[in-house]
Amino acid sequence: MKLLLYFSQMDKDKAIVLLSGGIDSATTLAIARKEGLDITCLSFDYSQRHKYELNAATRIAKALQVSEHIIIEIDLRKFGGSALTSSIDVPKGRTDREIGKGIPITYVPARNTIFLSYALALAEVRGAKKIFIGANAVDFSGYPDCRPEYIRAFQKLANVATKSGVEGRGVTILAPLIDFTKSEIIQQGMKLKLDYSLTFSCYDPVADGIACGECDSCIIRKKGFAEAGMPDPTKYTSKVIV
Amino acid sequence: MKLLLYFSQMDKDKAIVLLSGGIDSATTLAIARKEGLDITCLSFDYSQRHKYELNAATRIAKALQVSEHIIIEIDLRKFGGSALTSSIDVPKGRTDREIGKGIPITYVPARNTIFLSYALALAEVRGAKKIFIGANAVDFSGYPDCRPEYIRAFQKLANVATKSGVEGRGVTILAPLIDFTKSEIIQQGMKLKLDYSLTFSCYDPVADGIACGECDSCIIRKKGFAEAGMPDPTKYTSKVIV
Repeated sequence: MKLLLYFSQMDKDKAIVLLSGGIDSATTLAIARKEGLDITCLSFDYSQRHKYELNAATRIAKALQVSEHIIIEIDLRKFGGSALTSSIDVPKGRTDREIGKGIPITYVPARNTIFLSYALALAEVRGAKKIFIGANAVDFSGYPDCRPEYIRAFQKLANVATKSGVEGRGVTILAPLIDFTKSEIIQQGMKLKLDYSLTFSCYDPVADGIACGECDSCIIRKKGFAEAGMPDPTKYTSKVIV
Repeated sequence: MKLLLYFSQMDKDKAIVLLSGGIDSATTLAIARKEGLDITCLSFDYSQRHKYELNAATRIAKALQVSEHIIIEIDLRKFGGSALTSSIDVPKGRTDREIGKGIPITYVPARNTIFLSYALALAEVRGAKKIFIGANAVDFSGYPDCRPEYIRAFQKLANVATKSGVEGRGVTILAPLIDFTKSEIIQQGMKLKLDYSLTFSCYDPVADGIACGECDSCIIRKKGFAEAGMPDPTKYTSKVIV
């Protein structure tokens, strides 16, 4: 019986899931789990201001019982250029219209390209057939590397970039939430019994697990829960933002 | 006069050059210098066995008077899977035919994809219009990410991946040596007065600046110099390889 269980585990297709610790990547992981895959989660410590999200990623990976969780350190600070990795202020209290307009200062140049490159390397080494990314084009259309055409271009690159691709055992890049609104994502996660109190979204947290409530990411999160008709389990600071 | 010089420096187009310290990337840098570009070199410390190549990269960047040289640490050892980053033995004394056949064990999964992703991020932050990579398909056809179709796929990705790409000020990926033989590369570098004693190619060096003479990279290098009719300035070990 034990041997049977062992072989059934062996038979599972392997997948890499990029996990930041926010709503989108946690929901993406829940979707990958539902498919019964053998999952390696990959997170990045890129000297982000919101490093507490890595604690959330660790909680989520544990709760969803993945096979492996790797956190890779990458030093984007040497490049600078984004409010998420440098000393530029994170914008606060912006309206929906302001958030939806143009590419925000919190955009990290080529971030998803760097993340997917590492995922591609890891998929090759582990023999994974799928890479999941929580990219989402709807609520945050300002990020160029969250659009369907970006995912398609990365898929084409992956097909020619690796040994497995060349040998016809290539990896599939999946962004199951690409066309979902934030409230649809939350509803999807709720169906999959995902505990959103494990997730953390804030770009400029006051402390571990305490969100500012005023950055673009907090505003989008609050709106998502409101539209989904669900309570947001995030602890927001009671500090008055001046 | 000083002001004039300052402005002429300001006017130069910026470029990122991936620099490993070997023949191909050094020659690529010499080509970029010849174009009169304002150059940032980018090298990677990826726990490679042949870490001495980073000393070569530093020497070359200095000799060719680039504006900036950044070395980024990336931890591919966490993934494993290549003789260049793990404890697998580097193959020695292979024939031309053996070297040309299939994808070698020294292949690092998705290495050029990771390197180009960082270069893309840096190009965006620095406002660079060009990224140069010394990829070469002829002598080392075993690496999937050294082929023209790979470079083309990365160009397409870059066009949709970044703010500058979306805004129509995208970066051009250049692999000027892609169709050159090793001896043609060396002849090109000689024309540009490149001092190849600065470069280092060995995958399994005996000490800093002392090459094994027997790994694929040493064999290809020796053959390249012989075919170009030039002396190879590399110091090879006199140790007998058993």
